[in-house]
Amino acid sequence: MIELSNFIGSIESYDGANVVVFGAPFDCTSSFRPGSRFAPDVMRKESWGLEMYSPYQDKDLADVAVYDAGDLELPFGNAERALAQLREFTQGVINGGKMPVMIGGEHLMTLGVFEAVHQKYMDVCVIHFDAHTDLRQDYLGEKLSHATVIRRIHDIVGDGRIFQFGIRSGEKEEFEFAARTGFINKFNLNGIDGVVEKLKGKPVYVTLDLDVLDPSVMPGTGTPEPGGASFMELLGVMIKLGELNVVGFDIVELAPNYDQSGISTAAACKIWREMLLSFCSK
Amino acid sequence: MIELSNFIGSIESYDGANVVVFGAPFDCTSSFRPGSRFAPDVMRKESWGLEMYSPYQDKDLADVAVYDAGDLELPFGNAERALAQLREFTQGVINGGKMPVMIGGEHLMTLGVFEAVHQKYMDVCVIHFDAHTDLRQDYLGEKLSHATVIRRIHDIVGDGRIFQFGIRSGEKEEFEFAARTGFINKFNLNGIDGVVEKLKGKPVYVTLDLDVLDPSVMPGTGTPEPGGASFMELLGVMIKLGELNVVGFDIVELAPNYDQSGISTAAACKIWREMLLSFCSK
Amino acid sequence: MIELSNFIGSIESYDGANVVVFGAPFDCTSSFRPGSRFAPDVMRKESWGLEMYSPYQDKDLADVAVYDAGDLELPFGNAERALAQLREFTQGVINGGKMPVMIGGEHLMTLGVFEAVHQKYMDVCVIHFDAHTDLRQDYLGEKLSHATVIRRIHDIVGDGRIFQFGIRSGEKEEFEFAARTGFINKFNLNGIDGVVEKLKGKPVYVTLDLDVLDPSVMPGTGTPEPGGASFMELLGVMIKLGELNVVGFDIVELAPNYDQSGISTAAACKIWREMLLSFCSK
Amino acid sequence: MIELSNFIGSIESYDGANVVVFGAPFDCTSSFRPGSRFAPDVMRKESWGLEMYSPYQDKDLADVAVYDAGDLELPFGNAERALAQLREFTQGVINGGKMPVMIGGEHLMTLGVFEAVHQKYMDVCVIHFDAHTDLRQDYLGEKLSHATVIRRIHDIVGDGRIFQFGIRSGEKEEFEFAARTGFINKFNLNGIDGVVEKLKGKPVYVTLDLDVLDPSVMPGTGTPEPGGASFMELLGVMIKLGELNVVGFDIVELAPNYDQSGISTAAACKIWREMLLSFCSK
Amino acid sequence: MIELSNFIGSIESYDGANVVVFGAPFDCTSSFRPGSRFAPDVMRKESWGLEMYSPYQDKDLADVAVYDAGDLELPFGNAERALAQLREFTQGVINGGKMPVMIGGEHLMTLGVFEAVHQKYMDVCVIHFDAHTDLRQDYLGEKLSHATVIRRIHDIVGDGRIFQFGIRSGEKEEFEFAARTGFINKFNLNGIDGVVEKLKGKPVYVTLDLDVLDPSVMPGTGTPEPGGASFMELLGVMIKLGELNVVGFDIVELAPNYDQSGISTAAACKIWREMLLSFCSK
Amino acid sequence: MIELSNFIGSIESYDGANVVVFGAPFDCTSSFRPGSRFAPDVMRKESWGLEMYSPYQDKDLADVAVYDAGDLELPFGNAERALAQLREFTQGVINGGKMPVMIGGEHLMTLGVFEAVHQKYMDVCVIHFDAHTDLRQDYLGEKLSHATVIRRIHDIVGDGRIFQFGIRSGEKEEFEFAARTGFINKFNLNGIDGVVEKLKGKPVYVTLDLDVLDPSVMPGTGTPEPGGASFMELLGVMIKLGELNVVGFDIVELAPNYDQSGISTAAACKIWREMLLSFCSK
Repeated sequence: MIELSNFIGSIESYDGANVVVFGAPFDCTSSFRPGSRFAPDVMRKESWGLEMYSPYQDKDLADVAVYDAGDLELPFGNAERALAQLREFTQGVINGGKMPVMIGGEHLMTLGVFEAVHQKYMDVCVIHFDAHTDLRQDYLGEKLSHATVIRRIHDIVGDGRIFQFGIRSGEKEEFEFAARTGFINKFNLNGIDGVVEKLKGKPVYVTLDLDVLDPSVMPGTGTPEPGGASFMELLGVMIKLGELNVVGFDIVELAPNYDQSGISTAAACKIWREMLLSFCSK
Repeated sequence: MIELSNFIGSIESYDGANVVVFGAPFDCTSSFRPGSRFAPDVMRKESWGLEMYSPYQDKDLADVAVYDAGDLELPFGNAERALAQLREFTQGVINGGKMPVMIGGEHLMTLGVFEAVHQKYMDVCVIHFDAHTDLRQDYLGEKLSHATVIRRIHDIVGDGRIFQFGIRSGEKEEFEFAARTGFINKFNLNGIDGVVEKLKGKPVYVTLDLDVLDPSVMPGTGTPEPGGASFMELLGVMIKLGELNVVGFDIVELAPNYDQSGISTAAACKIWREMLLSFCSK
Repeated sequence: MIELSNFIGSIESYDGANVVVFGAPFDCTSSFRPGSRFAPDVMRKESWGLEMYSPYQDKDLADVAVYDAGDLELPFGNAERALAQLREFTQGVINGGKMPVMIGGEHLMTLGVFEAVHQKYMDVCVIHFDAHTDLRQDYLGEKLSHATVIRRIHDIVGDGRIFQFGIRSGEKEEFEFAARTGFINKFNLNGIDGVVEKLKGKPVYVTLDLDVLDPSVMPGTGTPEPGGASFMELLGVMIKLGELNVVGFDIVELAPNYDQSGISTAAACKIWREMLLSFCSK
Repeated sequence: MIELSNFIGSIESYDGANVVVFGAPFDCTSSFRPGSRFAPDVMRKESWGLEMYSPYQDKDLADVAVYDAGDLELPFGNAERALAQLREFTQGVINGGKMPVMIGGEHLMTLGVFEAVHQKYMDVCVIHFDAHTDLRQDYLGEKLSHATVIRRIHDIVGDGRIFQFGIRSGEKEEFEFAARTGFINKFNLNGIDGVVEKLKGKPVYVTLDLDVLDPSVMPGTGTPEPGGASFMELLGVMIKLGELNVVGFDIVELAPNYDQSGISTAAACKIWREMLLSFCSK
Repeated sequence: MIELSNFIGSIESYDGANVVVFGAPFDCTSSFRPGSRFAPDVMRKESWGLEMYSPYQDKDLADVAVYDAGDLELPFGNAERALAQLREFTQGVINGGKMPVMIGGEHLMTLGVFEAVHQKYMDVCVIHFDAHTDLRQDYLGEKLSHATVIRRIHDIVGDGRIFQFGIRSGEKEEFEFAARTGFINKFNLNGIDGVVEKLKGKPVYVTLDLDVLDPSVMPGTGTPEPGGASFMELLGVMIKLGELNVVGFDIVELAPNYDQSGISTAAACKIWREMLLSFCSK
Repeated sequence: MIELSNFIGSIESYDGANVVVFGAPFDCTSSFRPGSRFAPDVMRKESWGLEMYSPYQDKDLADVAVYDAGDLELPFGNAERALAQLREFTQGVINGGKMPVMIGGEHLMTLGVFEAVHQKYMDVCVIHFDAHTDLRQDYLGEKLSHATVIRRIHDIVGDGRIFQFGIRSGEKEEFEFAARTGFINKFNLNGIDGVVEKLKGKPVYVTLDLDVLDPSVMPGTGTPEPGGASFMELLGVMIKLGELNVVGFDIVELAPNYDQSGISTAAACKIWREMLLSFCSK
């Protein structure tokens, strides 16, 4: 019998796992084009089009003990409750000594996971890949939104702990806030070496909004923004981040239905494999 | 210059209007397939593929003074606030002596409009076309949901005031509740003549969930349910309802992106024209 | 080697043919949704999904000598020149003693074919299936348009020679013109028996705008109009028309790209087979 | 955690089941449009859009003990080996005293299941719903093909044991063979009452090629054939068949990718629920 | 109320505007794949997914007074009349002291705008970005065609005034004509610095056929031609052109329906913002 | 009359041809996403969107005598028989002194062509462009599969005769096998100059699996693998290979239906033109 309902390479036992991957299929604050809710389900299935082996890193998923916990059943239309559920679930993962890996859903979901990570690792830094600043104080009157999530994380960690890459869209005030309170590398992924140097040994959380990639590579996302990174550039950075102590990560904002060809999902699955191998198989 | 940004036939002056049409582009509680948020915008544009004249009723949109108020800017992810905004807006319309016509969005939006209608017309009855009962007490722990909206209306009006047609999906308890507390015609639109006879002269609110139509006619909806009404059956019923005192109506759950051919939007626009002509041009 | 570039069942020799089918891939006056230009090419290919044998009529395409002349190369953006080319080509077909069968393209193309037919058969009558009246005097200032084609034919044949079926959209004046000057059966295909009785023995031209079918059956057309005929109703009528002396016919307004499922093309191909068998194999 | 990887209503224990549903994702002999291989996977997921309760039969899936055995891993490009695997698997199901329910895949898959059924029930009759005769002796030189499957079954059971409904496409010889050797009701589902009367008490196998439905209802299939049954007609027949002793059934030829709207899958899931309730819950 | 019917950042008053943007929704001479007629409407709506602020230029749309005049109502199927309307409209814009910005529609539309620009600025030069030479003397017997538009402009301005970039498709004669009579940079955007140096201070018209971009970046166009420019290359060039005296520009040949993902429209909108900011906000 | 049923530039006479192009529309062993069977038919039609002239090579298809032999009618579901047919057909081409050019279909088809080429040119070397190693000993128990094709070719030619480029997916063992027994350039197309130097004067067969291109350039393929070559990189390599004695080539694994935009087919057609001009017009 064929069993494609979990991510490729995931193991059967929760107890034996070092890493727990889980889906957060919530996209309710997406103002423009919803659909990231479908991402974890589609990624699971399409992950079987991948090989377990990475020729880039000469590593194999068989060497990482990942448990696929499935999708959380989040209450549609109640972002606050959804985030609370995510936080609680992630706490369980971390308290069990396992690394949390969240597959969104929209970027706001990062907040619930990060709150739990921060409880455990008070000095955690955040490396943020995105086309958008996500630094608004509020959006359409709501403080909890895909457009405010990094600002909420700044509320928690304060200045100097957030490192942003690839940002090419936002209000002028957001770019100024980023430059004033942290690190922002506009337009591309340059400068990663210096940041890695600086963060060596510290706990690091990596949040990857897939729209940091160029829309030609990642058309299936809510707000495609031309002029982004290539797949190989992002892959190189993720391998570089393997030098750090990554304590959790997420991949968000894949909206597979906007890309009938499936190349967006293929890219999301492949970068997921490479991040897992880079961060968890040493 | 071409101007397609309002519904065909709508007039320029709010003050001179007898009818106000407005969009409620909210679909956040949709658990299965979101996308009804896009309906009002798409319907406005495609309405220009219609003729103003109805050969079925020998009436013309030029004879109805409809003002298109555009879309309300509703807070994504906050159903309660969205409903409050809708209620308030509708109160303004009704207090101005005009008939409210809401284009959804998801079916929950009906609740906001209906609360305002009920404040004015305490004895209003509801004629409900749908594939689904929508009578759950709650759904995934939420009382405000597309699956509970008619139950919430029953909370307001009580027994004997809701008349359901075309219903072919629901839990057993919902069907029993409907039969016990009101009128339900399962599977098709039969029995409309008796209901019209009964409601003559009373204020009536009509809520049309487009999935009452067969999916072959209306593929572009969130939860298509095979075995529904034909377009001509629904059209006949709407013309029949012209004998009643309709004080407001809505058309909900068109999700145009699921139907690349556009026939769902064409059907939604045409039934909108015929409802307007039947209810408002006498 | 597989050869799918002609219609199924077509023969190799022009000289031996009694019927000549040809495409008129022109859709430039389509104001709403162009794309009927792709119809003949797609129909040729998909016709190979048909059987040659019709169980409805117990006839076989092998018994009709049809030559597929391919598509005319019409000048985009010059309706007048395109019609002249069509007329000239059709004259050649008719003068060769063969029946012309045109596959559109937009409905305006019918005019070029009909002019040639009328030159040969001065007393020809027209049976017209359509959702739309197509009886405007002009459209956006142009006299040659998909919306005026039947009016142009009326210019040629005058009163009493045009019989319209299935019409459910148009301006009030068009419906009145139709009722005053000819025969119009609104909404459906009723009344065909009487018309057949009346036209027995006379030369008849049949023009089929595929949007006469319900959009559920024919989503792939430029202006889908809900409330149309079923496939079986149309098929029954076409078999009935076999009692007449059909001297030419056309099938227009398939726009295959709007129907990713291909059911529109399948229906167009099947009705083409049945019309051929009904009109040409006696 | 959400678990959508099995059919809605299926139970966890194989041993406790009376019915075993399984997928046969094979479409290699499809000459025209492949894609039925994706059907079982898509149906499982979309089945969660159904209610467990049928208002048509006032029955509930909770009252049928169905085990979902997942998909067989069939060798692409080797029809003979695939059929052997299916036969072997089905033998296991039947020998365990359970009813086999196969979800295709292409129609040829029926043969593997039926061979096992026939071994157990030597006097089994076949009720066959389809648009096509499927009675060719061979197809493109192959004896094992979607176009020959019913002929292969006739090879096993001989004359008088196959009852065909809805057939509207085939070669003349196939129609004649059907009429000579069994029962064929062309074009629609009439005559089912007589057949039910005749087969009362005997073991019956039901094979449903979904293209028996009209393409407007079931666009997502390999060879859509206009002029088919409505969903309600097919549903009525399936409820009627509940009077018989059905010992196994299958649903084949859904090709979900050709129907972006998802209505085909919705119809396939709903008829699956109703067949299960009609045949297995008495 | 939400108002998305004009381009983001456009102002309400025509009189107060320095720039007038308008749509030319005409695609009738497109021989291969029509659909650019839908571009201006889709771009208006999708422009709201942009930010007003450009981090690339540190400028904001709020600082440019643009009026959105909507779409011209052009006669389908009459290229000559359409061009006359465009010319007349553009004359009005220029005579009012405003810069014309045309959104196509097919490339032929440039001719109507340019004729008006040339009447005012007799010494105007043309910078032309395209995958195709567009230098044919005629096409399918027509002198007015998307494939001849630059040749027609050469008829007006003569040798030495047209500068072509990114050209990678055409007949040998067209490449030779370009090299003999003007400036052509094949394959990419190199050489822009020299051209800018040369044209400093002179009036310049910029015409951008979006297919100059690589199809991976701009799949939604009529004739995608592999091997084109990246988005960042084109953006860099447009910022460079800000050093010139641009007196008008256009963006043509977006065909949004061929790109279901929407990345083509996103790229078109973003380059529109950057061109506006580069040419009009100094 | 328009005749688009052969590749652009192909000549009418088989006898006068130096090159024979033919389609192998077979995709039955594709486990993941079938559809390459549609490639030759779609490429023929879309090739007419190309110019005959290549500005890259300053050559013209008019100078190459190519005959288009159409598609072979291959038996679905019988890979062995299909390969035998291909081998036999290719033998005929080669024995007639013509170069075979095969358009797939899946990559397995290369085997049938190559066997015939090898019979004639015993010392032939293979240059293989692909994202995948295709070096498995067997796949799902089958020795003849798209995933084993290069291994089967190695069975024929032995060590040192296969040169692989762009490979970025496979099992570890496959990469090791490639490195041990031949030449493999992982990830990109580097190293071509050395290989060309080495193979000068020898007979060379070129097999191009289009998924060697980045998915942004070639989304329409069965297993898109991020991180591939750009179109210009591949074009440069193909022009370089013109220095060799190419005795046959193929282009496989275009699956046009997964790319609604058509850019994949456009890229496939253009690289076909450039390969023809580079290898056959000297």
